[in-house]
Amino acid sequence: MATKDQLLLYLKEERENWVSGELLSNKLGVSRAAIWKHIRKLKEEDYVIDSSPKKGYLLRDVSDLLLPGEIQDGLNTGVFGKGDIVYLPETDSTNTRAKDMAARGAPEGTLIVAEKQTGGRGRRGRSWFSPPSDGIYASLILRPIMSPGEAPRITLMTSVAVAEALLSLTQLKVRIRWPNDILVNGKKIAGILTEISTEMDGVDYIVVGLGLNVNTPSESFPEEISGGATSILMETGKQFPRAPLVRAYLEWYEKYYEMFKKDGFGSIMRRWKELADIVGQQVTVSVIDKKYIGEVVDVDGDGVLILKDNNRDTHRIFSGDVTLMRS
Amino acid sequence: MATKDQLLLYLKEERENWVSGELLSNKLGVSRAAIWKHIRKLKEEDYVIDSSPKKGYLLRDVSDLLLPGEIQDGLNTGVFGKGDIVYLPETDSTNTRAKDMAARGAPEGTLIVAEKQTGGRGRRGRSWFSPPSDGIYASLILRPIMSPGEAPRITLMTSVAVAEALLSLTQLKVRIRWPNDILVNGKKIAGILTEISTEMDGVDYIVVGLGLNVNTPSESFPEEISGGATSILMETGKQFPRAPLVRAYLEWYEKYYEMFKKDGFGSIMRRWKELADIVGQQVTVSVIDKKYIGEVVDVDGDGVLILKDNNRDTHRIFSGDVTLMRS
Repeated sequence: MATKDQLLLYLKEERENWVSGELLSNKLGVSRAAIWKHIRKLKEEDYVIDSSPKKGYLLRDVSDLLLPGEIQDGLNTGVFGKGDIVYLPETDSTNTRAKDMAARGAPEGTLIVAEKQTGGRGRRGRSWFSPPSDGIYASLILRPIMSPGEAPRITLMTSVAVAEALLSLTQLKVRIRWPNDILVNGKKIAGILTEISTEMDGVDYIVVGLGLNVNTPSESFPEEISGGATSILMETGKQFPRAPLVRAYLEWYEKYYEMFKKDGFGSIMRRWKELADIVGQQVTVSVIDKKYIGEVVDVDGDGVLILKDNNRDTHRIFSGDVTLMRS
Repeated sequence: MATKDQLLLYLKEERENWVSGELLSNKLGVSRAAIWKHIRKLKEEDYVIDSSPKKGYLLRDVSDLLLPGEIQDGLNTGVFGKGDIVYLPETDSTNTRAKDMAARGAPEGTLIVAEKQTGGRGRRGRSWFSPPSDGIYASLILRPIMSPGEAPRITLMTSVAVAEALLSLTQLKVRIRWPNDILVNGKKIAGILTEISTEMDGVDYIVVGLGLNVNTPSESFPEEISGGATSILMETGKQFPRAPLVRAYLEWYEKYYEMFKKDGFGSIMRRWKELADIVGQQVTVSVIDKKYIGEVVDVDGDGVLILKDNNRDTHRIFSGDVTLMRS
């Protein structure tokens, strides 16, 4: 472990207590000047550290940047996020970075996070609003052994993992909107963009992108999306630390991914249906060039929405934008 | 049009006739020294041109390199191969190049050809033997508006286009081996590698790679594959020009692709079945970790092979290696 990381670990153990420079210097076997240099570096990374010529150093707060060390601190997974986490202060799109890395052989479980995206992407060629340090913009690389036909299930599974992570750490009433938007009080709090590279004989890799609005204030959303978007801050009135959310996401994700590989998709699909609560609802579904209105009869094991329209014709809809017609 | 291309066009019109340097110089409005420089360049590109101080220049033979100008000379398509053709004397894999270009926005119909591949790839992670200038190593970029579930049909369609191109220019008895190998006399003459980049909402791009053994002599195949591989040269005893084959491939491909978009997959699938002649046959199918033995009941509209084994159990096989059990 690098000296800076050892120093941070020690400050975390002694959190809220003063630790003298001399003690740190002895513990880590480096000069007091070196300790001071590492402290300065940690402060640059947004760690809140008090320093006093007499008392030494005191860690008041960890960084709220999504630093790999903060994500991995207490991370309870086998593979996901355990290897390299690529941390980018700014990038075009974490999914684009992840696809590049996957094409060059990056292993399953590699995570790419960015504080800010300049070209964040959503479904169907849309953009994803990605203001600096307010949200989680993260892409995960998967290398499942599966046929291309099974790959859409990964998208449904991802929405379940995101919902579980939010449910386990917040009091929010989280719902899934088919196929994979995450809503709170009818507004979108998170979106998922799954990109698949496949041959006919099997999937090469899947990149799963997550955009989650954490500390985004209402007024910072662009006019056009402000009516339909929300964040944890907006729903609770409180800032929420991001690293624990990423950790929970990785832990739930790995849990469901292992379940998928071992027992198939049945119980995950059941959980998806509980969280989506769409079967039996009256909906409008917009696809590229059509609009369907009717009742949702089912969502099948591949995520295909089965809708019966007012002429009692049945439609199998692969993907689209759905609006509930409650009222 | 560049002066060199105009010069080549003129020499082609006057093919097998001597054309004086003075005439060319007047026609093209450049000095005789410039004409001579362009002739030298054409010779470097493998055009066979006689020159005589008195009589001028005579085009004996066009280049057998797969130069864009030779492929496009007489090409009867609307889009495929009409835009940029990327010609590479040597590359790792035309599919890898094509995927890079597609990710950066290259349009539908872009063709990448190489004289030689140093890392030619086949299905299921296998390599593709790609000796210099003996074969056709070509990748085509498609951007169909389709769901990921339909994409495997592109692979079946490609095998039909390759078979039609060979049938239209040669006397060879061409068959398709499920899912998409092209055989002559039971030996593989061409292979197809389809790579798909997709989101759940729709395909982003598809790269279709073709490896076709044209003038590969028997003795140049590596020992391990020599028993199962063949080439046009091996089957006919004659060298075959490659550019007309690429042209025919592009023309058949576009024809079937338009048919697919307009009328769906029905008639293409029927043609595939004629060319494959597999229904009713006794076969062995090896997949990653299993082996199935039985009779082929059908190949469905998505290319899934339906096999009834000796216990009368039915299996739906997505992809694998099939061996006919005739004899």
